[in-house]
Amino acid sequence: MSTVKKSVAVLGLGSMGAALADALMVAGHEVSVWNRTPGRAEGLVARGARRAGSVAEAVTAGEIVLVCILDYGDIGPLLEQQGGGRAALQGRVVVNVTNGSPEEARAMAERVTALGAAYLDGGIMAVPEIIGSPDAFVLYSGSREAFEAHRSVLDAFARSVYLGEDPGLAPLHDLALLSGMYGMFGGFLHAAALVRSAGGSVAEFTTTLLQPWLGAMAGSLPAMAAQVDSGDYSVTGSPLAMQVAHDSIGEVSRAQGVSPELFAPLFALMERRVADGHGSEGLAGLVELVHPR
Amino acid sequence: MSTVKKSVAVLGLGSMGAALADALMVAGHEVSVWNRTPGRAEGLVARGARRAGSVAEAVTAGEIVLVCILDYGDIGPLLEQQGGGRAALQGRVVVNVTNGSPEEARAMAERVTALGAAYLDGGIMAVPEIIGSPDAFVLYSGSREAFEAHRSVLDAFARSVYLGEDPGLAPLHDLALLSGMYGMFGGFLHAAALVRSAGGSVAEFTTTLLQPWLGAMAGSLPAMAAQVDSGDYSVTGSPLAMQVAHDSIGEVSRAQGVSPELFAPLFALMERRVADGHGSEGLAGLVELVHPR
Repeated sequence: MSTVKKSVAVLGLGSMGAALADALMVAGHEVSVWNRTPGRAEGLVARGARRAGSVAEAVTAGEIVLVCILDYGDIGPLLEQQGGGRAALQGRVVVNVTNGSPEEARAMAERVTALGAAYLDGGIMAVPEIIGSPDAFVLYSGSREAFEAHRSVLDAFARSVYLGEDPGLAPLHDLALLSGMYGMFGGFLHAAALVRSAGGSVAEFTTTLLQPWLGAMAGSLPAMAAQVDSGDYSVTGSPLAMQVAHDSIGEVSRAQGVSPELFAPLFALMERRVADGHGSEGLAGLVELVHPR
Repeated sequence: MSTVKKSVAVLGLGSMGAALADALMVAGHEVSVWNRTPGRAEGLVARGARRAGSVAEAVTAGEIVLVCILDYGDIGPLLEQQGGGRAALQGRVVVNVTNGSPEEARAMAERVTALGAAYLDGGIMAVPEIIGSPDAFVLYSGSREAFEAHRSVLDAFARSVYLGEDPGLAPLHDLALLSGMYGMFGGFLHAAALVRSAGGSVAEFTTTLLQPWLGAMAGSLPAMAAQVDSGDYSVTGSPLAMQVAHDSIGEVSRAQGVSPELFAPLFALMERRVADGHGSEGLAGLVELVHPR
């Protein structure tokens, strides 16, 4: 499959911006780069990128303007003033992968469309090292037309996932995935603390037991997700009342000198849910306490 | 590979006990079953199990005595009184898969060895439905001699993992794995709440985004585990100080009407660790706060 060669301006050359610029060049696109501290462009220029002397020069060189800077508050002025405003941006596509909230993404979409450009918000679910590999993916929301027109370019970064016209969807799903990751890491930390408290090798525990166990348990997530969607939390397996009958994790943790603080909030929610009369249901019903309808 | 046919007594025929008894029969062993409520034995007897009229009758029929009952406190009397005590248990192997704490397992090992029997504590990492399948595994600790002599029988249940002579190791690792699972489920619940708050399909989010994401992120657990073992938490990637610079998950959650309570304790630990001067290190260092050396 051949890809149409396009011109892309990359604003912001931190480790992520630089990785994205490199991936674009590998895919054969024409890349102009700009960074507040010009030194950051050296390596990319040596590999074939065009150095833009100003934001306006970068913007006018790119059909697509990719924004990847540290501070969300800088993006507006960067496009409206330094970038040349409507005169420069009219007809272009701004793809903003700077981390922000759904509200910030919606406000940015308004500012950008007011300049005559299309807006796509991107949430990069990868570290810079795996940009360009099949393990990475990027969430997009905003202009469907822009996404479809330039998808082949975006695919140079990672697997591209389009979530919808609401520009806030990408950051929201980005944060949802991060919260899922932090949950798993929190569980790992508690497990690691317990194993360490008994003098065991955490590395051996993790590779021989925890990873296969989490892999198997992750298999039950789709069924739990279907319950959240339907609101029917009836289970045939282990009901909540049985899971909270005894706080074994909390008790054993304390006995081992391990703080139960990472596990305690979930257990408290399980107890509340049972007290609310849902003891015969499954764990997925806790979502009703975390996010009351 | 042919397996030597052995005799096993199964005490306790809840759904797990019954599944274990069935797996033993499938593997060709001679199974005697006992349950406080005799009706529970019907199906197993129809499939070839021998019904024991009393605990003592079951125990004397089994080279291996498998205990799988609800209440840990009942096990001692079951073996010492109803089971016939030393006269009946001498020379046998008691495999206790009843859920308990490491301390309870150690105490039970003393009681059982005082009766002249060898003791193995077992932690079943599976639901009854997957007993006998390669996805299940059972953790064992206690008599290494007993484990090695009867491993072929135990392998009928699941993948058998022997952890060491300390009988408390199986329940400790069992609880460590459960805490890891609950962490992942807590992360799922928070993510699901965020997606639901935006009107999205949690099922679609889970299968297309969360599962592959967690699978990829689980790939970093061995490196984190090695850091816990070594105590060297230096990172090349995203340092803690950057991860806590902005509580995006907390803020967006509140804006979406989602309680941040499942995520908050981890974030608080990250902030404490940064305040302690470890902002340039990675997440794995939080174990030092959860389990101070």
